[in-house]
Amino acid sequence: MDLVNLEFIQSISTPSPTKIVLVVIDGLGGLPNPETGKTELETANTPNLDKLAASGTCGLIDPVSPGITPGSSPAHLALFGYNPITFEVGRGVVEAMGIDFDLEPGDIAARGNFCTVDKAGLVTDRRAGRISTEKCTELCQLLDGLALEGVRLFVRPVREHRFVVVFQGEGLAPDVSDSDPQQVGVVPKTIVALNPQADVMADIANQFVAQAKTILAKYHPTNMVLLRGFSRRPQLPTMSEVYKLNSAAIASYPMYRGLAKLVGMQVLETGVSIKEEFVTLRQNYANYDFFFLHIKGTDSAGEDGDFDRKVSVIEEVDKALPGLTSLEPDVIVVTGDHSTPALLKGHSWHPLPILLYSQWCRPDGVGEFSESACILGGLGRFPATQIMPLAMAHALKLSKFGA
Amino acid sequence: MDLVNLEFIQSISTPSPTKIVLVVIDGLGGLPNPETGKTELETANTPNLDKLAASGTCGLIDPVSPGITPGSSPAHLALFGYNPITFEVGRGVVEAMGIDFDLEPGDIAARGNFCTVDKAGLVTDRRAGRISTEKCTELCQLLDGLALEGVRLFVRPVREHRFVVVFQGEGLAPDVSDSDPQQVGVVPKTIVALNPQADVMADIANQFVAQAKTILAKYHPTNMVLLRGFSRRPQLPTMSEVYKLNSAAIASYPMYRGLAKLVGMQVLETGVSIKEEFVTLRQNYANYDFFFLHIKGTDSAGEDGDFDRKVSVIEEVDKALPGLTSLEPDVIVVTGDHSTPALLKGHSWHPLPILLYSQWCRPDGVGEFSESACILGGLGRFPATQIMPLAMAHALKLSKFGA
Repeated sequence: MDLVNLEFIQSISTPSPTKIVLVVIDGLGGLPNPETGKTELETANTPNLDKLAASGTCGLIDPVSPGITPGSSPAHLALFGYNPITFEVGRGVVEAMGIDFDLEPGDIAARGNFCTVDKAGLVTDRRAGRISTEKCTELCQLLDGLALEGVRLFVRPVREHRFVVVFQGEGLAPDVSDSDPQQVGVVPKTIVALNPQADVMADIANQFVAQAKTILAKYHPTNMVLLRGFSRRPQLPTMSEVYKLNSAAIASYPMYRGLAKLVGMQVLETGVSIKEEFVTLRQNYANYDFFFLHIKGTDSAGEDGDFDRKVSVIEEVDKALPGLTSLEPDVIVVTGDHSTPALLKGHSWHPLPILLYSQWCRPDGVGEFSESACILGGLGRFPATQIMPLAMAHALKLSKFGA
Repeated sequence: MDLVNLEFIQSISTPSPTKIVLVVIDGLGGLPNPETGKTELETANTPNLDKLAASGTCGLIDPVSPGITPGSSPAHLALFGYNPITFEVGRGVVEAMGIDFDLEPGDIAARGNFCTVDKAGLVTDRRAGRISTEKCTELCQLLDGLALEGVRLFVRPVREHRFVVVFQGEGLAPDVSDSDPQQVGVVPKTIVALNPQADVMADIANQFVAQAKTILAKYHPTNMVLLRGFSRRPQLPTMSEVYKLNSAAIASYPMYRGLAKLVGMQVLETGVSIKEEFVTLRQNYANYDFFFLHIKGTDSAGEDGDFDRKVSVIEEVDKALPGLTSLEPDVIVVTGDHSTPALLKGHSWHPLPILLYSQWCRPDGVGEFSESACILGGLGRFPATQIMPLAMAHALKLSKFGA
C-alpha cells in the first residue's frame, strides 16, 4: 500500500487487546524437485502447519506483483503493508541494517567494496580478490573515524571485501552518484551531486575516497574503495501509527531486525535457533499485540541450492509451531517474504503460500499447507501488501468503513 | 501497466539470449454451447495445447478489468504490457492501422463515412446505404490529395462506406470534435478545436469537409462525408526500451501488424494461413528473442456466430503447435486478446484462458487448456498487463528488485 492506502487503514484501525502473530518463513516458496514433482514445502512433513491450514484459510501472495523477484527489504516492507515501490530502501541502508548498525534518521549510508587499482588508477578487481572478513575488519579500522569536516564517520566491515560507510552530520543528502564504475579497466568515478542539496555530501564522499586511497596505497590488492547506494533510512509511518499496534520483532538475523526497526517495531533479544525464537515469543507474549517472527534458514538453504536442508528447516518450524498455537493468538499468519527455490539457488518471482488462522476466518477446502493446495484457497492470489489489513480484520481491529 | 510501472519494469529488465513466444488466438474465450455445455475451446480437440497446459501453469486473464469488453487495440496493448486506459489508441489511428497505412508520428488520422444528405443538408443515412468497397475506393480517389494549405492529405478506402483520412503537416493537433452527429435528421457538425493548439486542425478539417461536399454533390447517395475519431498514433515506449527485447510480429491482418509497430516490433512478412505463420516463426527464429504470433480466424468466426468454425480454427492452431514447441523456446505463452463467444457474435468481457510454459514455471493441477480448467490454474485470475512481466521473469530476463 502506498501512503494514501496506509492513511486509509490508519483511519479505520483501532487498538484492541487481540493479538496477531506473523510467522515469516524466509524464501518459503519453491519449485518441484524434478524427481518427485514436489516442492520443498510439499516434501516436508508438516502435520502442524497442515492442521492450521485445514482450520484456517489459505491463498497465494505476490510479494510485489506477478513476475517481480524482490530482495528481502522490499519483500518485508510489503509484508508489513508498505508498498515497496513507493518506499524504497537504498543499498547503503540495507547493508547497514545487515550489520545491526543503528542508523539515525539523518545518517547517510553507502555500501563499500575494497578493490584493486593499478598504477594508473584503473580498477583491476572490483572485489580485491574477495579478501577475508578478518582482513576487511582490519582495513575498516584504518578508515573508521577519518577526519572529515563537519561529519562523523563510521566504517564497518560486512563480509569479505564489503563494508558500510555511514556519514553523520548536518545538511547531508543522499542524492549522489556512485563511485563504483561497475566494470574494470576504468578509474573509479567521481561522486557527483544529483541535485544541489547533495553538493555537501558529494564533496565529503569524494574527500573520504581520496583519504582512503592515500591510506590504502600500500595495502595492495586492497588499495582503493568503491562506494555505491548512498541512502538514508526511509521515513515510514510506524506500525503503531498506521495499525495502532504495539509490535515486536523476533529475528536472529540483523537485516530483519533492521527492517522491523524501520517500521517502528520493538526488536526483542533472541537466540539463533528456531526453537529459541519461539521461546522468545512465549516469554514476551503478554507485552505486545503484534509479533513478527522471522525464520532465515529456509532462504539460506534455498540460496545454497540445498533442497533437503530447506525441507528440514520447514520441518523444524512445524515442530516449533505448537509453542505458538498453544498461546491461542487471535490471528496467526504463516507465509514467506518471497520464494527461494533450491532449483534456482536464489530468490524468485513465484507466488508463495499463505495461511491465515483465526476464529473469524472462513475456512476453505485446503487441507495442507503447500503451493499446490493454496492455489485453491479461499484467499485467492493477492499482493502481499494486503496481508496486514486481512490480519487486522480477522483480529477485529479494523472498524467499519463508511456508514 | 501505466508509464510508472513500465519504467519500473524497464529498470529491472535485462537483455539475454532466452526466447519468448506469445501466441495470441484472437477472441479465444467463449461461452458454452447450450446443447453440450462446452465452449469452443472445450469442444475443440487440442492434444498439443492440453499437453502444454499440463506441463505449464495456467490461469485466466482480464484484458482490461472485470466486466470490460475491449476492442482489439486496447486488448493488444494490454497483452504487450501497456495499460490500455492510459495509452489510448484513437479510432482514426485504428482505422489507418487496419489498412496497413504507416502513420508518421505527427500525422492525424480520422475515420470517415460516406453518407447521404438531403437538399437541406440534413443527414438521411449515415452509411450511404452501405455502398460497396469498390464504390468507396472510387470515391476516395476523388478526394485523395485534395489541396489544403500546408497539409498533405491521404484518403484511403477501408470497407463499404468507411474510409480513412490522414492529414500530414506541421502544427496539427488531434484534439478536435467529430463532424459525425451520430444521428439522422440533423446537419453534420462543424468540427471545433477542443483546445487552442488544435485550431489549425479544426480549420483544415472543415475545409476538407467543405471541398468533399462540393465534389460529392452529384454522387447521391454518397454526397457527403462524416468524420470522427481524429487521433495521432500514441507515443509508446518501445518493447526494446521497456523490456530490452528484440521483438518480431507475425500477423496476417494489417491491424495487428499496426499494433505491433506501435510498440516498436519488427513486422515479418508472412502468409495468410496459420500454417504459414508458424513457418515464418521457424524461419526467423534465430533473429529475435520475442515473437508475437497472431491468429485471427477464431475472432472472425466468433463475430460471425459460427461456433463450429471457431472450433476448427482452434484445432488448426493445435495442429501447428508442434512447429513451435519443437523450437524449445524458453517461454511459451498461449492466450487470446479477449473473448469472442460465438453465442454473442462479438467481443465480450469474459476472462480468457492463458497458459505459460517454461522450465521455471511451477506446474499446477490443470491438465487441459480450457476456460473451466484454467479457473483452477496456478496463475489465478489477473490483468493481461501482467503477462509480460511474468513471461520476462520465466525467461530470466528480470533482475532482482531491491536488496
